Amino acid sequence: MSARLLEALATTEALAEAFSDAAVLGSMLRFEAALARVETRSGIIPGMAADAIAGVSIDAFDPAAIARGARASGTIAIGFVEALRARVRTASPEAATFVHWGATSQDVTDTALVLCLVRARGILAADHLRLAGALRRLSNEHAGTVMLARTLLQPAPPTTFGLKAAGWLGAAARTEASMSAAFREGCVLQFGGASGTLAALGAQGLTVAAALARELDLPLPDAPWHAHRDRLAALVAACGVYAGTLGKIARDVSLLMQFEIAEASEPGGRSSSMPHKRNPAGSAIALAAATRAPGLVAAFLAGMTQEHERGVGGWHAEATTVASVVQTTGAALAAVADLVETLRVDPERMRRNLDATGGVVFAERAMLLLAPALGRETAGRLIAAAVETAARGERSFGAALAANPEVASALAPDVLAGLAAPEAYLGVADALRRRLLGDERE
Amino acid sequence: MSARLLEALATTEALAEAFSDAAVLGSMLRFEAALARVETRSGIIPGMAADAIAGVSIDAFDPAAIARGARASGTIAIGFVEALRARVRTASPEAATFVHWGATSQDVTDTALVLCLVRARGILAADHLRLAGALRRLSNEHAGTVMLARTLLQPAPPTTFGLKAAGWLGAAARTEASMSAAFREGCVLQFGGASGTLAALGAQGLTVAAALARELDLPLPDAPWHAHRDRLAALVAACGVYAGTLGKIARDVSLLMQFEIAEASEPGGRSSSMPHKRNPAGSAIALAAATRAPGLVAAFLAGMTQEHERGVGGWHAEATTVASVVQTTGAALAAVADLVETLRVDPERMRRNLDATGGVVFAERAMLLLAPALGRETAGRLIAAAVETAARGERSFGAALAANPEVASALAPDVLAGLAAPEAYLGVADALRRRLLGDERE
Amino acid sequence: MSARLLEALATTEALAEAFSDAAVLGSMLRFEAALARVETRSGIIPGMAADAIAGVSIDAFDPAAIARGARASGTIAIGFVEALRARVRTASPEAATFVHWGATSQDVTDTALVLCLVRARGILAADHLRLAGALRRLSNEHAGTVMLARTLLQPAPPTTFGLKAAGWLGAAARTEASMSAAFREGCVLQFGGASGTLAALGAQGLTVAAALARELDLPLPDAPWHAHRDRLAALVAACGVYAGTLGKIARDVSLLMQFEIAEASEPGGRSSSMPHKRNPAGSAIALAAATRAPGLVAAFLAGMTQEHERGVGGWHAEATTVASVVQTTGAALAAVADLVETLRVDPERMRRNLDATGGVVFAERAMLLLAPALGRETAGRLIAAAVETAARGERSFGAALAANPEVASALAPDVLAGLAAPEAYLGVADALRRRLLGDERE
Amino acid sequence: MSARLLEALATTEALAEAFSDAAVLGSMLRFEAALARVETRSGIIPGMAADAIAGVSIDAFDPAAIARGARASGTIAIGFVEALRARVRTASPEAATFVHWGATSQDVTDTALVLCLVRARGILAADHLRLAGALRRLSNEHAGTVMLARTLLQPAPPTTFGLKAAGWLGAAARTEASMSAAFREGCVLQFGGASGTLAALGAQGLTVAAALARELDLPLPDAPWHAHRDRLAALVAACGVYAGTLGKIARDVSLLMQFEIAEASEPGGRSSSMPHKRNPAGSAIALAAATRAPGLVAAFLAGMTQEHERGVGGWHAEATTVASVVQTTGAALAAVADLVETLRVDPERMRRNLDATGGVVFAERAMLLLAPALGRETAGRLIAAAVETAARGERSFGAALAANPEVASALAPDVLAGLAAPEAYLGVADALRRRLLGDERE
Repeated sequence: MSARLLEALATTEALAEAFSDAAVLGSMLRFEAALARVETRSGIIPGMAADAIAGVSIDAFDPAAIARGARASGTIAIGFVEALRARVRTASPEAATFVHWGATSQDVTDTALVLCLVRARGILAADHLRLAGALRRLSNEHAGTVMLARTLLQPAPPTTFGLKAAGWLGAAARTEASMSAAFREGCVLQFGGASGTLAALGAQGLTVAAALARELDLPLPDAPWHAHRDRLAALVAACGVYAGTLGKIARDVSLLMQFEIAEASEPGGRSSSMPHKRNPAGSAIALAAATRAPGLVAAFLAGMTQEHERGVGGWHAEATTVASVVQTTGAALAAVADLVETLRVDPERMRRNLDATGGVVFAERAMLLLAPALGRETAGRLIAAAVETAARGERSFGAALAANPEVASALAPDVLAGLAAPEAYLGVADALRRRLLGDERE
Repeated sequence: MSARLLEALATTEALAEAFSDAAVLGSMLRFEAALARVETRSGIIPGMAADAIAGVSIDAFDPAAIARGARASGTIAIGFVEALRARVRTASPEAATFVHWGATSQDVTDTALVLCLVRARGILAADHLRLAGALRRLSNEHAGTVMLARTLLQPAPPTTFGLKAAGWLGAAARTEASMSAAFREGCVLQFGGASGTLAALGAQGLTVAAALARELDLPLPDAPWHAHRDRLAALVAACGVYAGTLGKIARDVSLLMQFEIAEASEPGGRSSSMPHKRNPAGSAIALAAATRAPGLVAAFLAGMTQEHERGVGGWHAEATTVASVVQTTGAALAAVADLVETLRVDPERMRRNLDATGGVVFAERAMLLLAPALGRETAGRLIAAAVETAARGERSFGAALAANPEVASALAPDVLAGLAAPEAYLGVADALRRRLLGDERE
Repeated sequence: MSARLLEALATTEALAEAFSDAAVLGSMLRFEAALARVETRSGIIPGMAADAIAGVSIDAFDPAAIARGARASGTIAIGFVEALRARVRTASPEAATFVHWGATSQDVTDTALVLCLVRARGILAADHLRLAGALRRLSNEHAGTVMLARTLLQPAPPTTFGLKAAGWLGAAARTEASMSAAFREGCVLQFGGASGTLAALGAQGLTVAAALARELDLPLPDAPWHAHRDRLAALVAACGVYAGTLGKIARDVSLLMQFEIAEASEPGGRSSSMPHKRNPAGSAIALAAATRAPGLVAAFLAGMTQEHERGVGGWHAEATTVASVVQTTGAALAAVADLVETLRVDPERMRRNLDATGGVVFAERAMLLLAPALGRETAGRLIAAAVETAARGERSFGAALAANPEVASALAPDVLAGLAAPEAYLGVADALRRRLLGDERE
Repeated sequence: MSARLLEALATTEALAEAFSDAAVLGSMLRFEAALARVETRSGIIPGMAADAIAGVSIDAFDPAAIARGARASGTIAIGFVEALRARVRTASPEAATFVHWGATSQDVTDTALVLCLVRARGILAADHLRLAGALRRLSNEHAGTVMLARTLLQPAPPTTFGLKAAGWLGAAARTEASMSAAFREGCVLQFGGASGTLAALGAQGLTVAAALARELDLPLPDAPWHAHRDRLAALVAACGVYAGTLGKIARDVSLLMQFEIAEASEPGGRSSSMPHKRNPAGSAIALAAATRAPGLVAAFLAGMTQEHERGVGGWHAEATTVASVVQTTGAALAAVADLVETLRVDPERMRRNLDATGGVVFAERAMLLLAPALGRETAGRLIAAAVETAARGERSFGAALAANPEVASALAPDVLAGLAAPEAYLGVADALRRRLLGDERE
């Protein structure tokens, strides 16, 4: 089974697979086999050892037994290595001696986690491309779609949906770029032996390490990082920032999808009790991720103060947090990519909602026009009166303002007539939109 | 499989089982069957519906398919109820109509989570009893075992290991009592129907709710709590506080177990590279829990601001967090209970470490004795000199002090001779110990 | 100055005062003076010492110098005690010797923090009373005010604003009760001396401690809690849960206040650029608190694993977190109390918004009525068609349904006619409301 | 006053100043003055306005009143702008009209925060240089200083203090580089007007924005970021990662400084009760920061899901969190830089502690030598026996092993004799050290 019920919304099938027992066992085996190969080539261990290890498949392992054992030894590596050694012994007793040669538990578990992360990175990258493409299309399509801006959930002067979508894209692109860089810098080989000096390999430590890194297609870091977890911390934090950005998009969509606003909507999920309902299920998944991710980031950071050459506790807290934060971010990403690709936008309703404000959102504009002529105090008084009139629904803000002789004397009729024309008060919205979509970004 | 490799240290077998797919499915089925039973009794739905639902077993469900479906609908309830309905339909088409009658998705998923928590509560309670008993025994056994107190990791005047263990017990007992109360208050029925008014049941809503609560052996709360998550929040937070307390015990043990201190040690786990090593594996598990739990608590609290009658995102983030925090707390508890039950204490080494300070930890005592006679300034100067002498290893602090004529004139020889007798400078350590173990507590 | 600009929204004047330098200094002085008094009475120190210490006022201290010194010594107590001793020395050189007699730094700083918390507790309690009263009035006034329930931000069958307000009250009352209990249990004397054994006071330790507790009007705990921070942790966590509850109220209000919904509104704050704007400023403050508090709770919990008899770092992280979480919770509380007291509710708009759904929110009700007669499948098909018709705005859901002959044959005309009457589909809303307001609660 | 007592350990004087009311007011004034200047140059507002605004000093403002007002309006900008306008009016009534022309509250508060951050960045950079220099010297000086590695707080094969210090430097350098980049990318102008379109400036929006950015010496971002907080989030997260790294250094130092280990020590702070104590005060400050920072990061990330064009609550939660996390990171940095610059290292004690293990830490080495000859099983048995002998203190591990005939037959006498020579079992420690110090890094 690739996902569990209580975590159904917190992962995707592909990501659940990337951190599954099969993936972890496969990665640990890859590490041990690669290590044996490079040690064989370096003449450190006999060749038959590498062959015997390479012949073991993940079916040889009982994950439940290894997990149980880990609660006694503090790491899954002990049980894994013992099981591997036992398996190799049945093929070649001598070979068993050279299993895990010169490595320490953390070498194999950290590198296995890194290999799982490399796989996850590919999944995230593909979904981000999908999201970015959909946002770009959406922004271009709605470059001229005028809608209310909303600040503190209250109507503000207009903007365009194209700029809104471009803002989402800008943030998604920036944070994905950071996340991607953090994966690149964080996904490096762990190989230091018992004390991080590779002492077991004598003078050959660095040569073996470099070969092992090549074999696993991972960069070789300056030095082992058994107790220096900053690279993983940066990766986890970057996921948190990206999840927050995805949550912002989902927040906006879930708000736009309110029945009373109805400017955009995702296809949505059904309800078990209400036949008429269409729930923002994708937004819910992304907002759930944005809710959980900050705590997961904190959980990782809180474990960074690891003691000396290998910590007690801090390190042991990491794996599940890393797997959780990457999966929840990926679940949000897949959900938001789906959602944006299928978003239904209603430009007409956007216009209707804007019109329904009776023009009061142009009060700022009126102030800019009137204040230089009448002074800010007087202008403020006249505008407040017109806002009141419009709020009572008697007439529009523009009409109420125009009806005032002081205003009429200060502003030309055509200025007054165009006061509440949204298209005339978009400032540099489209220039900003194009900057956000700028080629330099992707 | 009851646990996964990357989460091996973050749960126990019993707790992994309590939140497994089987447990969740079983709990959801229990809810639907109980609902049908009480609705049958109230004459709301026909009796055959209850029978048909009661006849379905958890094997009828495909958790992976339900999880997959949840990513489209936002909840596992939709897929579960549909599968249940389909299953019931094969037995009785009419019965299928009455599956989930009057309930909403959140009713079944929240109550199922609560039923899982009830099961977890029993597991935690049993392990706590074990821990409390072991701590009590340890404290009584070492009531007179003198050791260094250590503040900011530096030697301070002596305490007893009995008081230290009693302090652990006091904190564990207080926080478990809070946690247990939070479970009791948090594990209540969720049943409100689509809008939390039980409208589908007409005037019978409360009667049905009360009967359903009895049937499931859960308290009936004042009202549904679809968007009021404070009870679960308190439960999660209480787990976090308990995990922190367990982490404090583990921190102390891991420090006492340092080779250079060696005053107490857990049996410990082995190393994959170092045959001589005995790792504080139990402490590591508990410290890992104390590292993760704060972030998990934050993850839950961050989702509390749920919209109107059912939130979008906040609610969807909860289940995995609740399951994680309870399991990690339980893993810490099991590990610390094991650890304390098997802790090896070395009173002799405690004494040796105390003696190795050369008596400087009695400098405070010397100050209290000398300052009234000589004034704080003079006393301070003399004591500092004696501390220096002791630090150079020339003679003990007491001897150095006694050698000074000013001191000798101020203090009687027997007072001076007993200055550095640990037993004479324990204050009310044992009274405090007994207060902490007080019968009123357990 | 009682608050700082960057923290303006994160406190109130009263709470900023309660954690101000003056309050901290005053509390530390109170501790030292009370200690001297009880030690005088017990014959441990001479009476003139108590008098001299009691004569010192907080003006004698330079907070900036003490803060600077703390960065060298790790605690503000050192500098404070030295300054106090120097001050006392000017009055009585002998008395200076007995300043802080038998106490340790943490005794004075922890107890001072507790005294600040006692003051804060009173402020919070008063504001909660105000909030609870206003919510009760609101709920009673709107017991019969029908409105849309909203789940996942989508319209659901109706509820009443009275039930909504009662739900807010229920949650606020529960969480305040927990918070209040946590303050009561957490605000206890800290007094243990250097190693937590009160060794400096010989056999009189407990007597002095009990007298000191009485003198400061604080409960005496079982034992010092220098490294056991669970009580403060529970207090901090309870604030976090309460802040989350306040945030939920604010979330609802900010959503109801949307221009397009406009069912309730707070008087609100102005905008610096938009003359027409009325911002949900109170909601913003409460939501800000609910955003920050989870992380602050995590920050406290993460420090609980304190080493031995006094921790290094964990303890040092606490004071600012405690002060922040209490202040931000109190800021939210004051804002929400203000907001609820002045909330403008628009029952007519609530009704209009409900009507605007065209009755589709009664689709569940239709299902409950039709499914027993026609089977769930057929009923589902007919209802979906009627929902579609209503969504297109052609006619209301009820009318569309009634127009279908299958439906007409299954349901009596009066049932059909009343299908979409909100008052007839409120279930036990008012019974739940009254339960939530139940006298047993307050 | 530049710092408050309860926050004494959570900032430094320089950083407290950088986020003080004076700094905030000064930055807001700088924004408004610069805005007026560039708008004057663009012919948007009359020149006298710029002059009048430039003439106002921060003394004209009452921070307490502004903070009080912010609790009604939701932002300090309203009160600030009103006070500024009032002040300008006294000089020039016409000029008052043009204060804050075309800007929105968030433009001035966000940019002011950014200007404070620019100042903080300089402080952090200087302290990091100091730290990096001290670590490099320490590492070079102790390139050959042999000491125990310690994993899970248990002795492991030897390493060098030079490598340990280089590991600290490597992590500090990596994380500071990330933090510095995040400051660079996060410290950009905020300027978007009411809706983020700069509508008030018509077609001149981007020109004015670019000129304003130049005037304030800040980069101009693609677009306003009123509701896209990812840049600040990345900055906050990077501080968290750096704080974690500093905490790791402090953790190690506080452990090395234990009386029973005593391999390195910071000068340390005094105790208020214990004249002999030397507390790791610098480590405590850094560990406190590492304890708090994760929660602060979570607090920021939790607020990222900001609604539409300006959020309600999420944004309002930010300023205090940003100021806190930067200050606590800077406090840790200053403390660790001080600590490392003055660290006393005791190579002799390091050697003695290593020797005190009786050579058991070379058990891994023995295994690597014996296993190929005798098989892993037999080797394991012999080594375990020798470890036991050494643990009983009868003879050293090496001697016990050499006394066994099976061993003696398998290993040459000189190999056996050198088995427990630390210098011979350091692997590539120095190569790793040099890689970590590599010129490419700084």
